[in-house]
Amino acid sequence: MITVLLIGKGNVATHLYNAFLKAEAINILQISSRNLSKIPKADITIIAVSDDVIAEVSSKIKNNFVVHTSGSVRLNDLKNKYNKGVFYMLQTFSIDKEIDFSEIPFCLEAENEKDYNLLKTLALSIGQKVYSISSKQRKTIHVAAVFVNNFTNHLYKIGNDICKQNNVPFEILLPLIKETSLKIEQLDPKNAQTGPAIRKDQKTINNHLNLLNDDQQEIYKILTKSIQNGN
Amino acid sequence: MITVLLIGKGNVATHLYNAFLKAEAINILQISSRNLSKIPKADITIIAVSDDVIAEVSSKIKNNFVVHTSGSVRLNDLKNKYNKGVFYMLQTFSIDKEIDFSEIPFCLEAENEKDYNLLKTLALSIGQKVYSISSKQRKTIHVAAVFVNNFTNHLYKIGNDICKQNNVPFEILLPLIKETSLKIEQLDPKNAQTGPAIRKDQKTINNHLNLLNDDQQEIYKILTKSIQNGN
Ligand SMILES: NC(=O)c1ccc[n+]([C@@H]2O[C@H](COP(=O)([O-])OP(=O)(O)OC[C@H]3O[C@@H](n4cnc5c(N)ncnc54)[C@H](OP(=O)(O)O)[C@@H]3O)[C@@H](O)[C@H]2O)c1
Ligand SMILES: NC(=O)c1ccc[n+]([C@@H]2O[C@H](COP(=O)([O-])OP(=O)(O)OC[C@H]3O[C@@H](n4cnc5c(N)ncnc54)[C@H](OP(=O)(O)O)[C@@H]3O)[C@@H](O)[C@H]2O)c1
Repeated sequence: MITVLLIGKGNVATHLYNAFLKAEAINILQISSRNLSKIPKADITIIAVSDDVIAEVSSKIKNNFVVHTSGSVRLNDLKNKYNKGVFYMLQTFSIDKEIDFSEIPFCLEAENEKDYNLLKTLALSIGQKVYSISSKQRKTIHVAAVFVNNFTNHLYKIGNDICKQNNVPFEILLPLIKETSLKIEQLDPKNAQTGPAIRKDQKTINNHLNLLNDDQQEIYKILTKSIQNGN
Repeated sequence: MITVLLIGKGNVATHLYNAFLKAEAINILQISSRNLSKIPKADITIIAVSDDVIAEVSSKIKNNFVVHTSGSVRLNDLKNKYNKGVFYMLQTFSIDKEIDFSEIPFCLEAENEKDYNLLKTLALSIGQKVYSISSKQRKTIHVAAVFVNNFTNHLYKIGNDICKQNNVPFEILLPLIKETSLKIEQLDPKNAQTGPAIRKDQKTINNHLNLLNDDQQEIYKILTKSIQNGN
């Protein structure tokens, strides 16, 4: 039995709590990060709080092995006294949306093999894909994730805005969005590119720019230029 | 039996030809768009060629009902003598990647009800989702599609580049990419947004910018600004 203490009540903490509850080999406890006066003992303490308070929260914890869940915070930014680690799940969590943990890549880091193996056992109690990832590699993954997740989602939002402004149902775009994301499981994204930018179809590009507001135009131009430069 | 003549040998024509071959009610013929000396008669002639040669190719066709497959070309850009229409499939086609036609939205346009119904029958012989879409609406859909498909794919390419440059396997990002695209089937993209931009986490944003080349930085800054402005 591994006793896990979860600190935090946000998106990640909520999903993790529900997942660990179902794992037989895990004894799960959870407390708010706002009140750290009485901290239960645990084999692994997971801090799932906003990036910029991880250091502060960790400094108040005397448990043995403390990990955070952030893609962008270094292992050494933890300020607890004893062992440190990282339990980063490369996935996007929203409270309202169920998550399939078997599909999540767990990016783990620890200071020694024993701790790493404990984290690995923990990850495998709820998931299937485990990677050993250094703080430097995690930084890379995190910035790449911003492009393929946050920025991509923003492009979906712009697509949604354009549809709304013109009385077209956004749902008509969903199969295309899905196919675009699945296509790169088989093709390199560079080879999967189609459309007016890569074809240098300036007539269509100009027609499109005429339909957009200033902010959308700026994004359209820069991404078109980047596609055409092969960058 | 509907006799269909397909003009063109590219991505779209190839996938359409294979789909129509399997449809029992369709008699499918195909010719190259480079040699239009002998054009077989057909109930529907589908021109699936590059946007900027649709007008030219259509001007050489004397068949009754001629349609193109483009998202950005107007019905009236067809220069054939008789009836005109549009058979636009809102999906991304690459020769190497199989397509599930049952998921494709067919955006149809014709000059009269009889022609429209013929196009609809044709679409339903290989697919399931049919929409009546005007040339104006199709323009809107096409520019929205550039954002959610071509530009999104370019962000995948940048993610891939960042991984390659830092010896991290790109495949680690695939579950995140898939989840990002599926999330918006349940959440409005605006509500699905997470990450440093929407959190205004300037420390992480600066760290990320330090890891990127000039072109990537420019895209990172503009999309971050646009997310933060709620545009
Ligand atoms: N969401 C994702 O998609 C995702 C994915 C992978 C990793 N992560 C990482 O997981 C961690 C948590 O993210 P999240 O999305 O779960 O965040 P979240 O939903 O915003 O929750 C943040 C948590 O931190 C607490 N908190 C904020 N400011 C605090 C302070 N000054 N003192 C004490 N506690 C404070 C919040 O408490 P209150 O509720 O009381 O404000 C809340 O419990 C972050 O390191 C993030 O980078 C997130
Ligand atoms: N690919 C997509 O994802 C997609 C999705 C929806 C709609 N569409 C639309 O479907 C149409 C075809 O696109 P595609 O992707 O199939 O294009 P493609 O693969 O590039 O094929 C273009 C076809 O046009 C022919 N062509 C090019 N220039 C010509 C010229 N000067 N004279 C005669 N024929 C010429 C080509 O013949 P050669 O092979 O001899 O050069 C080829 O058969 C376009 O209107 C496009 O907007 C494409």
